[in-house]
Amino acid sequence: MTRKIKAVSRSYIDTMEPGFRAQFINSLSGFKSVNLVGTCDAQGRENLAIVSSVVHLGANPPLMAMVTRPRSVERHTVENLMATSFFTLNHVSSAFVEAAHQTSARYARDQSEFAQVGLTPWYSEAFPAPYVAESALRIGLRWRESKLIELNDTELIIGEIDEVHLDSMAWREDGSVDIEALGSVALSGLDSYHTTQRLRRLAYAKPGLPPRPLG
Amino acid sequence: MTRKIKAVSRSYIDTMEPGFRAQFINSLSGFKSVNLVGTCDAQGRENLAIVSSVVHLGANPPLMAMVTRPRSVERHTVENLMATSFFTLNHVSSAFVEAAHQTSARYARDQSEFAQVGLTPWYSEAFPAPYVAESALRIGLRWRESKLIELNDTELIIGEIDEVHLDSMAWREDGSVDIEALGSVALSGLDSYHTTQRLRRLAYAKPGLPPRPLG
Repeated sequence: MTRKIKAVSRSYIDTMEPGFRAQFINSLSGFKSVNLVGTCDAQGRENLAIVSSVVHLGANPPLMAMVTRPRSVERHTVENLMATSFFTLNHVSSAFVEAAHQTSARYARDQSEFAQVGLTPWYSEAFPAPYVAESALRIGLRWRESKLIELNDTELIIGEIDEVHLDSMAWREDGSVDIEALGSVALSGLDSYHTTQRLRRLAYAKPGLPPRPLG
Repeated sequence: MTRKIKAVSRSYIDTMEPGFRAQFINSLSGFKSVNLVGTCDAQGRENLAIVSSVVHLGANPPLMAMVTRPRSVERHTVENLMATSFFTLNHVSSAFVEAAHQTSARYARDQSEFAQVGLTPWYSEAFPAPYVAESALRIGLRWRESKLIELNDTELIIGEIDEVHLDSMAWREDGSVDIEALGSVALSGLDSYHTTQRLRRLAYAKPGLPPRPLG
């Protein structure tokens, strides 16, 4: 394989047209998770927004985080989860990726994205924020903390897991979930959705032992 | 499709055996990016560590972040980047996923993971931290800030992009990078690596317009 590696300097990045730069820089982190965040406002009006910045923070206590922009379309989500303390994260699968993407349109506050894009709100007995019925892996979280990142006015929103609902066929005996079997998609850049194909699982690495497949 | 959705309560999560819980909770965020972080210590000794928590923070200024555990194996990385201010992120492709995974073994501080796992350090003219020559997308960053997350003693490490080196064949005219064409992999859970297959790109969503493919 011959490759031609191109060098891109910071001074060149700073001269890029904003849309081009957004496409470029958003491509660099690698593949991203794709989740829908479900919330209600204090009046019970539902909101649904797609996010690609959800990360694992820790297993004990079970914590997850996502990055949001204070002034973006996701502001309804942030206001709702701060007002009510509850939000849901719902894996997006290839079966409803268009509807999920459409939630990023700038709908008015009194328009439910569920109704606008054709997804179905679903509630568990014990949890007050709406899940997405079409999703095969749904997580209910309590808002714990937000960290303002002053460098660019984004926020890291941290939630603690309260309950999980998942398609039981994908839950393995070792505790892991086969999210590929659920059809969960990955995102690259701003707008490219991907299905996945498992390469392999690798066992816990130890010095002096070569990498070895798991199982 | 018949699905059986299983409910998992927080009280059940709290009773899980730690290894089982780690596998479960680590599966929930969705697909993760896979990068190698390259650093040097003040004496110029190289370090390389795999991370699955890199996220995009913003395009202008170009910022990326990653979550690390203060007391984990990645501590060498965190100490190095705080001592020198420089680190690199390098996409992992299917061609060297075993070597990349092996960097997570607990090597001693004076052992270079590059040598231990068989990857090649590469330096650009202007940047003092080591890149991975095998990687088709390499990012040089200056450490800007770390945010301690007191809830579980993790840290959000924030870096500003100084330069990028990438295989030019994957750089599209709109600024985006076709990371699937580069062979970049995605991770699920703790140990499952995946290649991807593009479903489609979707155009910027607007209220009142149906979702539509890009291009």
